[in-house]
Amino acid sequence: MSEAASAQAVRATIGDSEFDRDTAVTLRAPGVYDVDLSPGWTIISAVNGGYLLAVLGRALADALPHDDPFTVSAHYLTASQPGPAVIRTDVARTGRTLSTGQASLFQYDDEGREVERIRVLASYGDLAALPDDVRTTATPPAIPPMEHCFGPEDGPAPVDGSSAITERLMLKLDPSTLGWALGAPSGKGEMRAWFGLADGRDPDPLSLLLAVDALPPTAFEIGLSGWVPTVELTVHVRCRPAPGPLRVSITTRNLAGGFLEEDAEVWDSADRLVAQSRQLARVRLG
Amino acid sequence: MSEAASAQAVRATIGDSEFDRDTAVTLRAPGVYDVDLSPGWTIISAVNGGYLLAVLGRALADALPHDDPFTVSAHYLTASQPGPAVIRTDVARTGRTLSTGQASLFQYDDEGREVERIRVLASYGDLAALPDDVRTTATPPAIPPMEHCFGPEDGPAPVDGSSAITERLMLKLDPSTLGWALGAPSGKGEMRAWFGLADGRDPDPLSLLLAVDALPPTAFEIGLSGWVPTVELTVHVRCRPAPGPLRVSITTRNLAGGFLEEDAEVWDSADRLVAQSRQLARVRLG
Repeated sequence: MSEAASAQAVRATIGDSEFDRDTAVTLRAPGVYDVDLSPGWTIISAVNGGYLLAVLGRALADALPHDDPFTVSAHYLTASQPGPAVIRTDVARTGRTLSTGQASLFQYDDEGREVERIRVLASYGDLAALPDDVRTTATPPAIPPMEHCFGPEDGPAPVDGSSAITERLMLKLDPSTLGWALGAPSGKGEMRAWFGLADGRDPDPLSLLLAVDALPPTAFEIGLSGWVPTVELTVHVRCRPAPGPLRVSITTRNLAGGFLEEDAEVWDSADRLVAQSRQLARVRLG
Repeated sequence: MSEAASAQAVRATIGDSEFDRDTAVTLRAPGVYDVDLSPGWTIISAVNGGYLLAVLGRALADALPHDDPFTVSAHYLTASQPGPAVIRTDVARTGRTLSTGQASLFQYDDEGREVERIRVLASYGDLAALPDDVRTTATPPAIPPMEHCFGPEDGPAPVDGSSAITERLMLKLDPSTLGWALGAPSGKGEMRAWFGLADGRDPDPLSLLLAVDALPPTAFEIGLSGWVPTVELTVHVRCRPAPGPLRVSITTRNLAGGFLEEDAEVWDSADRLVAQSRQLARVRLG
């Protein structure tokens, strides 16, 4: 029985879960952190970009005087591999309500030289200190109840089962954005899903960094196959998420010149928009 | 007669215009550039964030092997002032089709110490080298013909005339997003305008960095007044713009906890979506 499966009986908690253990960073020197990238968050063979963002986000939460990511911009430089890595942080500015810093994640080449994988610029604050005012015209995504949605465990592998990350996630895809898995993509750049962690850990601002980049690429529903590597991803965390499953909606409007944007919205169980992200990704046309 | 007014008779060209002169950077040492922030791009008394982005973008175009900004993420740290500044760049990675670097703009405090104003992370490429494929569901904004739109020169100062930047821009606002100027904001988080440079210089990828942050804040149409400082702004340049005026559409959906996002789209005269941006900004509620 996998760790995830056994944990479903006893729900994992924030601070004591697969996600927390696999994003743990160890202070080596001022501003420098060691981390072991887990093979449990790979998709095909690459380390998931949202997991990497959470690892960097955790280092920055330690390096900065504020705990919560408000806005994080990541530029992906080279493909990460499971295994040891080092994160170097730099504090740009500390303020009363916001602090800004940067972090780079490095791994090692065959000669032991550092190779930079991702560089991140981020502003952190305290979500609990924000006023409750909300004026929004955004509405939660139209997604069927969870029992009418489908995950990798529901039958003939609509999501590639070879990816370790699928065992770590509770991902239930809206059937209307699953045409690609049946060979009949809708042609629309949309992907929607219920999202959680498989061991039942509730969402927090750090796991929202994972949530925005955990769904299959919208390119699949546009009718493209193959890898869609992220060039840059920026996420805004707007609110501390309530316990319970999240709904994630991703939209692509413009595929041009071999690049597309993916706009993600994350909604919590209290119907609040808790995160927004946009990424620029490359596609192979053909 | 102002430089802008006299230039309208003879259209300025890319490379020989107010915008080009005021964003000029001078190499002082490898990766280090001197710049003089022009008082001509201030709004109220602050230096416009889009102008600053263009200045940093110009330094990065020199520092990186590629010329065109593809995705630029800026975190605004402290308020810039007109006058001398220094930009320090760092190349993170150079690749065949994309290069990534960062740049920080510094000014000086009363004791002559450097104070960081903005830090930027950006990936550059070659827009001309991209394939022509476009598959988009995005449509140009519904904005009336330019002669039915209004700028600061049209009557009783709908846009505050004390801001120098209004003399540098050709900005014609959609009357349906101008309610705030008449004391009757629509309540919708929308702002739309025709945009160009007052001296007639055509748009290029660098001036798109200016275009995404040049309109009045959507907060005005939501019914809020006062300053809306940018925390972070990311822009994707998707296509080299055709000559002629641009249309800029800005939308805010979620105002929560004293922060809002502004999503901008920029369309060129050939009806192509040439840039997308999103910023996180602070508002004063009350």
